[in-house]
Amino acid sequence: MKNSIKQLFDDVRTKNPLIHHITNTVTMNDCANVTLAIGGSPVMADSPEEAPAMTELAQALVINFGTIATDTFQAMIKAGKAANHLGIPVIFDPVGVGATSFRTEKAKELLKEVNIQLIRGNVTEVMGLLGLSAETRGVDAGKTSIDRQQLATKAAQEFRSIVVISGKIDVISDGQNIVSIANGHEMLTKITGTGCMTASLIGCFAGVTENFFHAAIAGISIMSIAGERAVRSLRQGEGVGTFKVKLFDEISSIDGGRWEEEVNFK
Amino acid sequence: MKNSIKQLFDDVRTKNPLIHHITNTVTMNDCANVTLAIGGSPVMADSPEEAPAMTELAQALVINFGTIATDTFQAMIKAGKAANHLGIPVIFDPVGVGATSFRTEKAKELLKEVNIQLIRGNVTEVMGLLGLSAETRGVDAGKTSIDRQQLATKAAQEFRSIVVISGKIDVISDGQNIVSIANGHEMLTKITGTGCMTASLIGCFAGVTENFFHAAIAGISIMSIAGERAVRSLRQGEGVGTFKVKLFDEISSIDGGRWEEEVNFK
Amino acid sequence: MKNSIKQLFDDVRTKNPLIHHITNTVTMNDCANVTLAIGGSPVMADSPEEAPAMTELAQALVINFGTIATDTFQAMIKAGKAANHLGIPVIFDPVGVGATSFRTEKAKELLKEVNIQLIRGNVTEVMGLLGLSAETRGVDAGKTSIDRQQLATKAAQEFRSIVVISGKIDVISDGQNIVSIANGHEMLTKITGTGCMTASLIGCFAGVTENFFHAAIAGISIMSIAGERAVRSLRQGEGVGTFKVKLFDEISSIDGGRWEEEVNFK
Repeated sequence: MKNSIKQLFDDVRTKNPLIHHITNTVTMNDCANVTLAIGGSPVMADSPEEAPAMTELAQALVINFGTIATDTFQAMIKAGKAANHLGIPVIFDPVGVGATSFRTEKAKELLKEVNIQLIRGNVTEVMGLLGLSAETRGVDAGKTSIDRQQLATKAAQEFRSIVVISGKIDVISDGQNIVSIANGHEMLTKITGTGCMTASLIGCFAGVTENFFHAAIAGISIMSIAGERAVRSLRQGEGVGTFKVKLFDEISSIDGGRWEEEVNFK
Repeated sequence: MKNSIKQLFDDVRTKNPLIHHITNTVTMNDCANVTLAIGGSPVMADSPEEAPAMTELAQALVINFGTIATDTFQAMIKAGKAANHLGIPVIFDPVGVGATSFRTEKAKELLKEVNIQLIRGNVTEVMGLLGLSAETRGVDAGKTSIDRQQLATKAAQEFRSIVVISGKIDVISDGQNIVSIANGHEMLTKITGTGCMTASLIGCFAGVTENFFHAAIAGISIMSIAGERAVRSLRQGEGVGTFKVKLFDEISSIDGGRWEEEVNFK
Repeated sequence: MKNSIKQLFDDVRTKNPLIHHITNTVTMNDCANVTLAIGGSPVMADSPEEAPAMTELAQALVINFGTIATDTFQAMIKAGKAANHLGIPVIFDPVGVGATSFRTEKAKELLKEVNIQLIRGNVTEVMGLLGLSAETRGVDAGKTSIDRQQLATKAAQEFRSIVVISGKIDVISDGQNIVSIANGHEMLTKITGTGCMTASLIGCFAGVTENFFHAAIAGISIMSIAGERAVRSLRQGEGVGTFKVKLFDEISSIDGGRWEEEVNFK
């Protein structure tokens, strides 16, 4: 598996996949920049009139619920169907699902209307997708004692999708196989958008391989590894501002070799 | 007063208040990051269908007029009423009020429909709220010879709100008491969003204390102090890019002790 | 010409022109900050109800198609007409034109309804405006063997506008005269928004001179020069994160003297 994933880094930088995003207005600049940093090319056309046509040009579609509204939701449905029709992988980031009934219902509708190949969320968001209640606070992960591996497997089976649950230990399941990764650092929760950016990274890899399980592992582990490395490079007095800058530096310079050295499968 | 404000820094980092923003698309990423930097947790759901439900989960609601439009305005009214109903403090940043009649009328409507606990604006914006004309240019403070202390007091009494007027000297009034703060640096006007971010900081403190006067003082003085410190740390050849990074570094590392040392009440 | 352009740097910083943007949600924060960095003042009111009134206060209007939608398009048309009526220069950045028919048709409608003084795009976008087909991928420049000087001249004549084509060599035409500039660095394509920011810079200069040809040369060459300088200042291990920070540092410190030293006319 490691060798196959390692190869994906070169593939993204060589093939430069176009990743269409219909995403939130809070972190979209970061998502565009992280797509460029890893070697993809971002496009973000979120008008319902245009989103399907732009999707048809892309190698992957990332749908993110961060600032979900009626208009953009229509764009997501239409673009998702266009992607399904052409076999373009769809990555879904159910930001804040579980926090409000509006968000939870829209997520259910999306999952019903569109075949999703990859889902990335925190534990309470994935619980929300499955209708399990959790203590949730807005778009942050709440506290829960649920077994994340079981949860990921259940969600993967239910939605016939690769499911990635971000957390201290990241869990990836395809419904049969489970991978857990122990990279990452708490500082990643101190800037907004690291989850959204992870979905963009997964999208970049899903745009160059048909092995979406590998794409998910590559995407989430890069964010965690880059976070660790960025923290290590901080000097006295540097905080979240410098951390974010260094996070992008790390993502733009990581390659398969460095990834293999630093990834920490559990 | 100083001891009580000093304590708020720990309170924000311990209680991690959820701050709902209905804000502009220009600076929302910075507002989310500054909320995290001081210890809060941001959420930004600006759809009229969802905004009230998300507000109910929050400890404070920040309403910012930067890119006001009909849809988001409806979300602000609905969310504001939800906040009022539950006693959640509302912070209003009247960006650009006075510049166009659209903006001024919407602000009046908001102030009529929603009880606002805290207002933060520059001098021309606060004049605009009161129907006083000033030379204004878009979203920047215009030139005026008005007495800012009197203006803050008048606005505070009129709107039954704490009023913060940002400027070279920041003025905070609750209608009876006035505090003036002489921290800050001109560089803070050379990047966009420092005003918006100040409203987010005020929101974080208002989310952990019922003394909104103290919350206002804490929020605005942190931005000014962090700006001064960020400027002092710049090296030869560094400009606004590095300044913004260091501003976030400073905000993420400030605590009550540093605040007490550096705050400059006039 | 050089002396006249050199003077514009001081003019922008002295006159501090207000630049109204109706632009995309991906890069608007960067566009606001670059406007401030060069000495202008940004405002971004994209509601159709308000956009014309805000335009009337401005010294230039920047229209950018990055995330074009029906609502913002209405704002662009109305604001463009208001600008035309008052003789305020309009800068058009046709992001992604040619990629979808929606975008191409909206661009044609804009060019029909509004007099545009300056157009800035990459080669496939300008081809798209002229109805020439090119291999295009989303919002990136596609591959083409077209002569860029001829293309710029043709577009300038067709649209009675200054036309700037960004690329390895930047080309500026007023329909009669051509200037080519050989500054720049590939790293500028590794962060999002450098094209959008270039349109903002051009807008700042167009807000202080009636010589829009000079404004275009100044705006595009600053971005290229700042990019070169930012790359030169990178240290081992620094990537796109630090590059973006340094790009803003360079833009905020460039003046006419440094520009004259570094600009590389071909």
